[in-house]
Amino acid sequence: MTRIGFDVGGTKIAVGAISEDYQIIARRQIPFPTGRPYKEVARVMADLAKELTDRIDSIGIGMPGEIDNKKGLVIRAHNVQFYEVPFKDEMKNYFPDIPIHIENDANAAAFAELKLGSFKNCKTAVLLTIGTGIGGGLILDGKLFNGGMNHGVEIGHMRLDSRGPLCSCGNRGCVEALCSGSWIIREGKKAVIEYPKSMIYTRTQGNIDRVDAKLVIDCAKEEDPVAVDIFNRYIDNLSSAIASITALLDPEVIALGGGVSRAGEFLLEPLRELVRQKSFFKYPYKIVAAELGNDAGIIGSALLGEFKKEADE
Amino acid sequence: MTRIGFDVGGTKIAVGAISEDYQIIARRQIPFPTGRPYKEVARVMADLAKELTDRIDSIGIGMPGEIDNKKGLVIRAHNVQFYEVPFKDEMKNYFPDIPIHIENDANAAAFAELKLGSFKNCKTAVLLTIGTGIGGGLILDGKLFNGGMNHGVEIGHMRLDSRGPLCSCGNRGCVEALCSGSWIIREGKKAVIEYPKSMIYTRTQGNIDRVDAKLVIDCAKEEDPVAVDIFNRYIDNLSSAIASITALLDPEVIALGGGVSRAGEFLLEPLRELVRQKSFFKYPYKIVAAELGNDAGIIGSALLGEFKKEADE
Repeated sequence: MTRIGFDVGGTKIAVGAISEDYQIIARRQIPFPTGRPYKEVARVMADLAKELTDRIDSIGIGMPGEIDNKKGLVIRAHNVQFYEVPFKDEMKNYFPDIPIHIENDANAAAFAELKLGSFKNCKTAVLLTIGTGIGGGLILDGKLFNGGMNHGVEIGHMRLDSRGPLCSCGNRGCVEALCSGSWIIREGKKAVIEYPKSMIYTRTQGNIDRVDAKLVIDCAKEEDPVAVDIFNRYIDNLSSAIASITALLDPEVIALGGGVSRAGEFLLEPLRELVRQKSFFKYPYKIVAAELGNDAGIIGSALLGEFKKEADE
Repeated sequence: MTRIGFDVGGTKIAVGAISEDYQIIARRQIPFPTGRPYKEVARVMADLAKELTDRIDSIGIGMPGEIDNKKGLVIRAHNVQFYEVPFKDEMKNYFPDIPIHIENDANAAAFAELKLGSFKNCKTAVLLTIGTGIGGGLILDGKLFNGGMNHGVEIGHMRLDSRGPLCSCGNRGCVEALCSGSWIIREGKKAVIEYPKSMIYTRTQGNIDRVDAKLVIDCAKEEDPVAVDIFNRYIDNLSSAIASITALLDPEVIALGGGVSRAGEFLLEPLRELVRQKSFFKYPYKIVAAELGNDAGIIGSALLGEFKKEADE
């Protein structure tokens, strides 16, 4: 049985084919076709899936934003600019006879971590997927939680700083506005303009379009003072967000996924220390890189059919 | 069967005797003996309970802060200045043969609301008790939630404004620092100093010790511009906190308890509107005054024995 899982983000579309024993047996990744209408995005995704394997048993799609998983609608997904889009029906045009599921991407990833990764045997756990935006997945009482009213979970839109930068959602100082990869990129771009002697400037040859989160973090690892300052402010923001979550949920595990989590212990070690200082409960919370890493999105999406079965039970 | 419930806060100790059918059949309230050692506080409380009834079957104590309900310890309760205090054992000296339970006050209140009040039949609900500090109780999956690691739930120490005022916990801009009754009092006192023409000044005859939250809210009701400004800023703070909670938990009901909630619809109506504007999910969340009002603390504490039975099952 070959299940296809899509992990759609603001910058890329990743797809994988999953074996019976949950291994990714084939995969592709392309840049997200920014600004294109959803029908074109669906066509590109259908081609990708067919390219991957000629035998598809089910398709799962994880997408950032608010999803109506019953109707297969993308209600709002700022990072891919989809609003009230019947994306499941559109995909059905290409795969009329195959079950298709669509779910919030962080929910899909948290589900994968619960079944196979960092959250195995956990009752209370939190996943933060840090990419273009911030996704969040919650495990409560040992089950994937999709909001008390089934609207979803949007950790990225918890409030962190009422006077902070504008967020894509229209509010100020959301976790996403202060802790996403986009925040690092924006600060990196500002550094190119403000500090022409910094390593960030040199590495990009002054071209702000070459700034990405990895480049800024790499410069911080090499102790460039401007990059270190950005990285320290980033950890300060992220630790506040996590301390806020520990005050409310006191979770067993907090796992970080998404591109930024690839910084590994360079990020996690100072992060743990700051969270410990800021948390109301004086407990050394377990903060780890999500075990399935960037594969959680693909695997979780591919498993969505199983989640639906469980949820219906 | 007469069960005694204590609701201990930063400014008062309330106690009630509860009948079989959960009615408060007798009650007393005294100011909290601020600055006195815990042994003296326990003695005062024991006398209060004995005054209330000569037949006591169980005693429950709700106290603000971090409680180890198994060991009967008050780990940290800033508002009453108890740290690592074996309060249950101290009370045992006065009532050696009676079951005594101690629990976080907001947990006790949320439990009462779940059994008898605003949260009946709810799966996901949030109680905010707004007094000297801010307590929070969470109902998840239809049960009282005491944190994933059993440390508790401290909604008051979620982060709201990283550059906000100092909080009793040592951090900046916690929900408690911006949304408690103490915030209103502090702003009211500042108004006495800064605006000698304001109604707050007149009503207190310039004596800042006469400022309380009710006085400020009453002046806002009478459209005193200085008080209205304080009240509007308060609602702005509180709506941000609630919007943050809706992003994470998407609850069926949010109930407000504690002294400030007595402002009723004067507070709730503009609050609902602002929460609607700020919430990520565009849903008109149900925000109500806690049904059991200030009795929730007493009733919930008196019922603590039942909670423990359920938790052990």
